[in-house]
Amino acid sequence: MEFHRKLRYGMVGGGPGAFIGEVHRMAAALDGHMELVAGAFSSSKEKSDKMGKQLQLDNDRVYGSFKEMAEKEAALPEDERIDFVSVVTPNHLHYPVCKAFIEQGIHVVCDKPLTNTIEEAEELCRLVEKHDVVFGLTHTYTGYPMVKQAREMIWDNKLGKLRKIVVEYPQGWLSEPIEQEGAKQAEWRTDPDKAGISSAVGDIGTHAENLVEYITGLKMQKLYADITSFVEGRKLEDDANLLVHYEQGVKAILYCSQISVGEENDLKIRIYGTDASLEWGQENPNYLYVRYPDRPEEIYKRGNPYLSEIANFNNRIPPGHPEGFIEAFANIYMNVGRTILAKEKGVELNRFSTDFPTVYDGAVGVHFIHKTIESGKKNEWVDMNYSPGSG
Amino acid sequence: MEFHRKLRYGMVGGGPGAFIGEVHRMAAALDGHMELVAGAFSSSKEKSDKMGKQLQLDNDRVYGSFKEMAEKEAALPEDERIDFVSVVTPNHLHYPVCKAFIEQGIHVVCDKPLTNTIEEAEELCRLVEKHDVVFGLTHTYTGYPMVKQAREMIWDNKLGKLRKIVVEYPQGWLSEPIEQEGAKQAEWRTDPDKAGISSAVGDIGTHAENLVEYITGLKMQKLYADITSFVEGRKLEDDANLLVHYEQGVKAILYCSQISVGEENDLKIRIYGTDASLEWGQENPNYLYVRYPDRPEEIYKRGNPYLSEIANFNNRIPPGHPEGFIEAFANIYMNVGRTILAKEKGVELNRFSTDFPTVYDGAVGVHFIHKTIESGKKNEWVDMNYSPGSG
Amino acid sequence: MEFHRKLRYGMVGGGPGAFIGEVHRMAAALDGHMELVAGAFSSSKEKSDKMGKQLQLDNDRVYGSFKEMAEKEAALPEDERIDFVSVVTPNHLHYPVCKAFIEQGIHVVCDKPLTNTIEEAEELCRLVEKHDVVFGLTHTYTGYPMVKQAREMIWDNKLGKLRKIVVEYPQGWLSEPIEQEGAKQAEWRTDPDKAGISSAVGDIGTHAENLVEYITGLKMQKLYADITSFVEGRKLEDDANLLVHYEQGVKAILYCSQISVGEENDLKIRIYGTDASLEWGQENPNYLYVRYPDRPEEIYKRGNPYLSEIANFNNRIPPGHPEGFIEAFANIYMNVGRTILAKEKGVELNRFSTDFPTVYDGAVGVHFIHKTIESGKKNEWVDMNYSPGSG
Amino acid sequence: MEFHRKLRYGMVGGGPGAFIGEVHRMAAALDGHMELVAGAFSSSKEKSDKMGKQLQLDNDRVYGSFKEMAEKEAALPEDERIDFVSVVTPNHLHYPVCKAFIEQGIHVVCDKPLTNTIEEAEELCRLVEKHDVVFGLTHTYTGYPMVKQAREMIWDNKLGKLRKIVVEYPQGWLSEPIEQEGAKQAEWRTDPDKAGISSAVGDIGTHAENLVEYITGLKMQKLYADITSFVEGRKLEDDANLLVHYEQGVKAILYCSQISVGEENDLKIRIYGTDASLEWGQENPNYLYVRYPDRPEEIYKRGNPYLSEIANFNNRIPPGHPEGFIEAFANIYMNVGRTILAKEKGVELNRFSTDFPTVYDGAVGVHFIHKTIESGKKNEWVDMNYSPGSG
Repeated sequence: MEFHRKLRYGMVGGGPGAFIGEVHRMAAALDGHMELVAGAFSSSKEKSDKMGKQLQLDNDRVYGSFKEMAEKEAALPEDERIDFVSVVTPNHLHYPVCKAFIEQGIHVVCDKPLTNTIEEAEELCRLVEKHDVVFGLTHTYTGYPMVKQAREMIWDNKLGKLRKIVVEYPQGWLSEPIEQEGAKQAEWRTDPDKAGISSAVGDIGTHAENLVEYITGLKMQKLYADITSFVEGRKLEDDANLLVHYEQGVKAILYCSQISVGEENDLKIRIYGTDASLEWGQENPNYLYVRYPDRPEEIYKRGNPYLSEIANFNNRIPPGHPEGFIEAFANIYMNVGRTILAKEKGVELNRFSTDFPTVYDGAVGVHFIHKTIESGKKNEWVDMNYSPGSG
Repeated sequence: MEFHRKLRYGMVGGGPGAFIGEVHRMAAALDGHMELVAGAFSSSKEKSDKMGKQLQLDNDRVYGSFKEMAEKEAALPEDERIDFVSVVTPNHLHYPVCKAFIEQGIHVVCDKPLTNTIEEAEELCRLVEKHDVVFGLTHTYTGYPMVKQAREMIWDNKLGKLRKIVVEYPQGWLSEPIEQEGAKQAEWRTDPDKAGISSAVGDIGTHAENLVEYITGLKMQKLYADITSFVEGRKLEDDANLLVHYEQGVKAILYCSQISVGEENDLKIRIYGTDASLEWGQENPNYLYVRYPDRPEEIYKRGNPYLSEIANFNNRIPPGHPEGFIEAFANIYMNVGRTILAKEKGVELNRFSTDFPTVYDGAVGVHFIHKTIESGKKNEWVDMNYSPGSG
Repeated sequence: MEFHRKLRYGMVGGGPGAFIGEVHRMAAALDGHMELVAGAFSSSKEKSDKMGKQLQLDNDRVYGSFKEMAEKEAALPEDERIDFVSVVTPNHLHYPVCKAFIEQGIHVVCDKPLTNTIEEAEELCRLVEKHDVVFGLTHTYTGYPMVKQAREMIWDNKLGKLRKIVVEYPQGWLSEPIEQEGAKQAEWRTDPDKAGISSAVGDIGTHAENLVEYITGLKMQKLYADITSFVEGRKLEDDANLLVHYEQGVKAILYCSQISVGEENDLKIRIYGTDASLEWGQENPNYLYVRYPDRPEEIYKRGNPYLSEIANFNNRIPPGHPEGFIEAFANIYMNVGRTILAKEKGVELNRFSTDFPTVYDGAVGVHFIHKTIESGKKNEWVDMNYSPGSG
Repeated sequence: MEFHRKLRYGMVGGGPGAFIGEVHRMAAALDGHMELVAGAFSSSKEKSDKMGKQLQLDNDRVYGSFKEMAEKEAALPEDERIDFVSVVTPNHLHYPVCKAFIEQGIHVVCDKPLTNTIEEAEELCRLVEKHDVVFGLTHTYTGYPMVKQAREMIWDNKLGKLRKIVVEYPQGWLSEPIEQEGAKQAEWRTDPDKAGISSAVGDIGTHAENLVEYITGLKMQKLYADITSFVEGRKLEDDANLLVHYEQGVKAILYCSQISVGEENDLKIRIYGTDASLEWGQENPNYLYVRYPDRPEEIYKRGNPYLSEIANFNNRIPPGHPEGFIEAFANIYMNVGRTILAKEKGVELNRFSTDFPTVYDGAVGVHFIHKTIESGKKNEWVDMNYSPGSG
């Protein structure tokens, strides 16, 4: 699927100093097929304007509120208005912002977690179906070529019947009460009004949860969570250790932590089957380690012809020239873009091009967050059977 | 503490084909201070003789039963009889064998787990106290210099207040039902009559448990275990995932597995404090990784002058010349030997020389195994407060 | 230095299937400050048009020859014509293309090696001076933040007096005679008419040479090269092992290879001083290893506050979120861009913003290539004292 | 080949504080088949006695000179006298000590380099032949199982035709003039009267040279050496960078260094053929990395059934339980021992049991050292065709 035209997009959130907004912009820009043309970068019109200027946007397309933006963009001629919006606000705004644009028939890329409540998440599923928009959720890690390779190998039954999964996501950045010392990112991430009921699970645990489901296709059946708020005065948990049972008898450990001092962003997954096992880690993402009971360990390396078609579909540069986080992010943007254009032209896409996390993955994630916190508070196993959306 | 004379030792178990008996012999031999002079290598006199011959022992000192050996050795003149016995039988024999020798006043080195029941373990504690013998338990991993370095750094408060521990011990060797296909090691390890109530937890989980306690000094307060027997027809669990609460609010994940295909012996521990964290892995044992919130990660390397005194006390060769499993094992033997000789001479030893796992560590381990299986079967948290022995 | 406007650029070369053209376009696009508006992507007007269409360029700005492009772009109004041109052709065209644009006063980003002859390289130096244009050369590896960190540490004398350098650049992609089997990249890289007098040294050895000079600031004094063409029928060398003497008594090994089967792109440098040493490798670029005689090895990690200012000036995303090759490439583009804009506005830039390889580095590289091949052919040490340009 | 009796050995050198003597003793002791019964540990009778006592030797067997020891041991009854001697003195004594024992018909294990002059080395070859003794040289690194695996894979043509070799041996321990500050090891290693004409090449370069020849079977044809003495006042070179041409057109880089600050003992070899390449490093010795042009890299791991027979013949413990330097050393001792016993019994051994470095390897090494220094001093390529001994 070639891009026969550049897509125009707008952004809500991502004002000065917001890390993730900048990442979204770089990801969208990387391949030269998307152009940022509008934005409501802040709830302060002044700040939004400043950011718009810095980004060299036409000031007419810079808005002081997402509502105004949704309405005005929708009112523009079809070949001028944004094709989709990127929602990169704190969590509590995901729902109203997404809703506003979906209702205008504008496609959406939204950061995770999808929403702060299960009800909101399900409402977004319904709205996406009703308005028939494309909705991508930036579970970035699914965009890495070697994650797609892992998934393909499991689909091809290279691991045999799966038995055990260990997925971990340690970070250390919240090991001190920096939210009480003026760190903006930390402030909203640990504030229930903005982050919702969870800090660690909502911000990173849900990436781990999504990664397992993406790679293995397995659904959770039940989980038990041991959650802790280690930092004094913190209102939300900053550490969670989970026992998880997946369908087909697969047992798992899943943990996430924001107080693991010295860890940066070490999302790592190991999956064990009867015939082989594999390991992938986000800090060393160009390699996939495959282990066997009876022959040498193998290191699969990004960009090589021996990889699966889908891994190479998501590859940009030759082996040995490392790709990173932004490129993985861009893969999600590109596939959302291909899907939008295919919809426009009425063509069918191959499964590679439609391979990005959706509003349903988002709802599963929100459900996971809520159930994890519920389990942690009740000290009980909780049932996880859940299928969002009308399907 | 110099060795002013060679120690004589005997061995119970460790007949032809037994992996661990051979390791004990190499560990005892390495430094030239211990000599194997007697053995009951098998319950078959014929096999025991064969092994004795292979080891070039005087046939008078090769026995058909451990009871005979204990009695006859004790009856020998003091400068001829064994100073200590190495017990390397399957688990169910640890108790009667140790008992027989302790009651003769003979010192003991015993493989882990100490015994198959808590009662037996406690009885051994009492016997050791009563007969005032030296008792070493081969939790090998505590013998590694870099493990001792880790412990010392925590004692010196380099990590600040501890918060979280992740300790894992994945193996893959029992991922097929090889005990049903004639593999000797696998047969007894999965046979409740010999291995006791547990396979994975008893064989390797207890190493993980001991390693945490050794390094941090923390006692378990409660645990929750999710245990599984993945291989059809297997009578004992081959996988266990645990949530553990230690004293002082420290939370932990501990897991062990014998069905993690492709894993060899990857015992690994990560410990997170408020000020720093550390990581050590058994397959790469000469290095200790220390991470900080605000400066570069450090790699401590075995054999260097900048290490703690106790790490270098347990070191043999210069940096960059790798030491391994046998050397760690030998460190336990050496310290047991030093303690035996110090007792003989009535001298006081420094804390380095008496640093080896004891019968009490063994009892804690047996208690841990039983409580883990209890938790796993009841699906409940179990209380872990436990102090074996009279102290 | 903010980008107060988007820069417009054109491209010469980079038609369908050309790996490096695509990389240049992604690098330029990443930060949203540069827009591709013109191109002569191929010497075939048809192919050039096709590429222009694929890139959604205005067809008026797509040219069939670089000469036409240089002339016509120069004739456009100042606020419309390209600010700079990216030259991504095979090597033999670098000179005429660069010349054509420089003479029109258009700034240049050019791939390495600068030219195929020393005379051409020096002529470009003169032209750049005469026409006062900004000229950036894409020695990509100098764009990595951790390379800049390495340089800064040496400038800050953290390593003491330098003594020894080992720099290696093994690749395996030309281990078979694929240029005889239709591989386009391989065809021109091994064709003296296009690649010049060298294959391995010209393509990758010069990166190694530049990396040393960039990080240490040392100039070569003499070198001895052992060059080989391992693949039958290949006209240029595919492997070169060099002994190099730098000023101040520093000794070095430098090697590059295109027949090192199984290697991807493993440029690696180790620098030893009297007080410390460091190691950086391109396949794992977010980490810098620093070793001391008397304390633990340190791992410096991209994106952390403890790094030097210049390392973080060239950083995009937080620690633990890997950056890669494209980001390093983009750093060169960004600094060239900042320098162009500063020139336009008449402002002075800090040293961070002007930190990119120049036409002079290019001339040094071309000189290095020629002298290396000369040494290899004569089996003699060759003198390397060389300073290009008027300065 | 079982050991039907314990071998008795004596030691010359290895007094208090000598690192390598202790390593030899541990290596010989490890498997329980050899017993140290005699020694001339120092040229001072007093020091020798002290060491003998510390090692609990019978004082009758502790000598004040190697000559006395050779004579008196030879005069003992056959079932009492030493079977072989371990020579662990500084280099200049290797020749007279070995000669003395060989002439008494006593087998020898000698440290490397064999002697300080080529003439002495050749004389030892002649004496070994004349007196028909077994002579083992402790090029330790050939004792590692994964080095033997590498050799076997090359013999089995898994790499195709060999093309290029990179072997490096950086150390940092002599980066300061510690020989002028009382460091014993450093004193004799840098003293021409004891170490011979070379420091770095003689001590470690020769290990690199031997490793290449051992693994590949290739003979050197010529070499060019760039040698340096970086530390002021040092009489011998502490760094050497070599270009080497092997037979069959194989090109190599070989370097060794004692001033590479922060390096410990990082002997590493990479071998490239037409079909695959392999890498092994001494600091991580249980793993062998094999790379292919068209499929995933493989990691071969010590102790696994998929390895070659000879690798597992030299293995002691299961995969994942690391073996190290002492075990590699012990493999050389064991094979020397097997060969001595086979000679005694008049049986033929398989090739595994006779696989240890010999006096001829030693002569090749001494020749290499001399030619390297010659090349370094003359700044010329030197011819390397050389076959020691009568064969």
